[in-house]
Amino acid sequence: MAIIDGKTISKELRDSIAAEIVSLKQQDPAFLPKLVIVQVGERPDSSTYVKMKLKSCQEVGIDGSLQKLPDTVSESDLLDLISSLNADAKVHGILVQLPLPPHLDEERITNAVKQEKDIDGFSELNLAAIFKKNAVAKFVPCTPKGIMYLLKHEKVEISGKNVVVCGRSDIVGGPLSKLLEKAGGTVTVVHSKTTPDQLKFYCSHADIIVSAVGRANFITGDIIKQGSVIIDVGTNYVKDETKKSGQRMCGDVDFDSCKDKASKITPVPGGVGPMTVAMVLDNLLESAKQSKKL
Amino acid sequence: MAIIDGKTISKELRDSIAAEIVSLKQQDPAFLPKLVIVQVGERPDSSTYVKMKLKSCQEVGIDGSLQKLPDTVSESDLLDLISSLNADAKVHGILVQLPLPPHLDEERITNAVKQEKDIDGFSELNLAAIFKKNAVAKFVPCTPKGIMYLLKHEKVEISGKNVVVCGRSDIVGGPLSKLLEKAGGTVTVVHSKTTPDQLKFYCSHADIIVSAVGRANFITGDIIKQGSVIIDVGTNYVKDETKKSGQRMCGDVDFDSCKDKASKITPVPGGVGPMTVAMVLDNLLESAKQSKKL
Repeated sequence: MAIIDGKTISKELRDSIAAEIVSLKQQDPAFLPKLVIVQVGERPDSSTYVKMKLKSCQEVGIDGSLQKLPDTVSESDLLDLISSLNADAKVHGILVQLPLPPHLDEERITNAVKQEKDIDGFSELNLAAIFKKNAVAKFVPCTPKGIMYLLKHEKVEISGKNVVVCGRSDIVGGPLSKLLEKAGGTVTVVHSKTTPDQLKFYCSHADIIVSAVGRANFITGDIIKQGSVIIDVGTNYVKDETKKSGQRMCGDVDFDSCKDKASKITPVPGGVGPMTVAMVLDNLLESAKQSKKL
Repeated sequence: MAIIDGKTISKELRDSIAAEIVSLKQQDPAFLPKLVIVQVGERPDSSTYVKMKLKSCQEVGIDGSLQKLPDTVSESDLLDLISSLNADAKVHGILVQLPLPPHLDEERITNAVKQEKDIDGFSELNLAAIFKKNAVAKFVPCTPKGIMYLLKHEKVEISGKNVVVCGRSDIVGGPLSKLLEKAGGTVTVVHSKTTPDQLKFYCSHADIIVSAVGRANFITGDIIKQGSVIIDVGTNYVKDETKKSGQRMCGDVDFDSCKDKASKITPVPGGVGPMTVAMVLDNLLESAKQSKKL
């Protein structure tokens, strides 16, 4: 069994992004990729993610900034802000940190971001391009893109293989299942209506399993196939009295029971998570290059 | 084995559409659902489909008309026509008959149809809504909608079942797999990169198989499960010297070897085909009602 080291792979990618920005700046000193994150309210988990993204921007030479709005902001004020960011030629990417407070329509807000700056890839037009057979999306959502990058990096063959995607969210399972299908995989999507027997049946024949359901121990060693590749997108917290915080972060996959049966497996933390942030940077740089027609 | 009689089910639906239009006209004599079909060129197969749709419109009281353009028409002239139809409040649905000649960008043309009149459901915004987990599409493309109608009519349970969709086109396999998934099915999409062994594996465990690949004898009795439901979307022609034309229309499914193993099966012709036309009428009536806020 080999552990897929997302932390190191992400670091290598971020280093190459940083090097590319340095080189582009040498050609054009005015080149400055710029990301604006819009955060509504003060959810601690959101603040953590935002901080992480801004730190990563800084490390690679991207001008990352935060526009914070109170959680009482009206939809029209938020839309006005997005509209002014859409119009600002210096801004190459706009991230609206989700989830938004319930009085704001996430779909309307997400779709308000101009396609050229939608580096999250969550707008309808981007999703439609992912789902259409021969279309190419301007930006692939960061988590699915990070997973495809990991699989390619690890030289995992997808075409002609049995692939199981657990979860059908619009930001992970949905687009990822299409990307894997476009790469030639025969993909089964399992979800909340899939019975335990069905889950076992599909997993026990799968060459690749990606789990993104948000349930600890959802995938266990007894249901996976010998030699399979296991990608764990889950971020869950379970009780652990040996930790000061009283809890431990874990994925959807029971790592201990799977690790000897899998040929390759991502850990949590340090697997898919670091790739998602790297792909934010990758999409942002792509957008900045496109705006300069580089 | 029961044959799913698409012809009769379609007829019943078309009769109920006709009755509803009569009743809506009684409430408002000005009510007149109107469909415009745009055909570029003279492809004989397209002309046959167009004729069939116009005849069906007439039978149920829909004002169907045809705008024919030469196959040398420029993209901008075609877009101008669509734009004027978009603006015409009397027109409730616009169908651009596909395929278009190669000099015309099908995607751009399809997306030019206003969402409220896109009764084919082929525009990006409609497709995005089908693919998004909690979104509801304004119009579901007619063939997938017809198949879902058949399954419901035949009281076929989808939730918790193994479903195989063969083919991943943007107008059948792609949207249909999402509709079946939203209905609770655990769906595997098989396609050109799926190996024969994989096809056999998935089909032999499937409770429902829908085939839309356009290959005669693609699904044979030896690979299906006893008691499964088989939906055949294929329209293929094979040599048959007993016929005057020297050929015979058939689906993707080898009907003879499957019919005794399947619990329910659609024939070709007379299965899915008639449902597609009925759904054009159904979507058009829906559009006309929405425009009147009925």
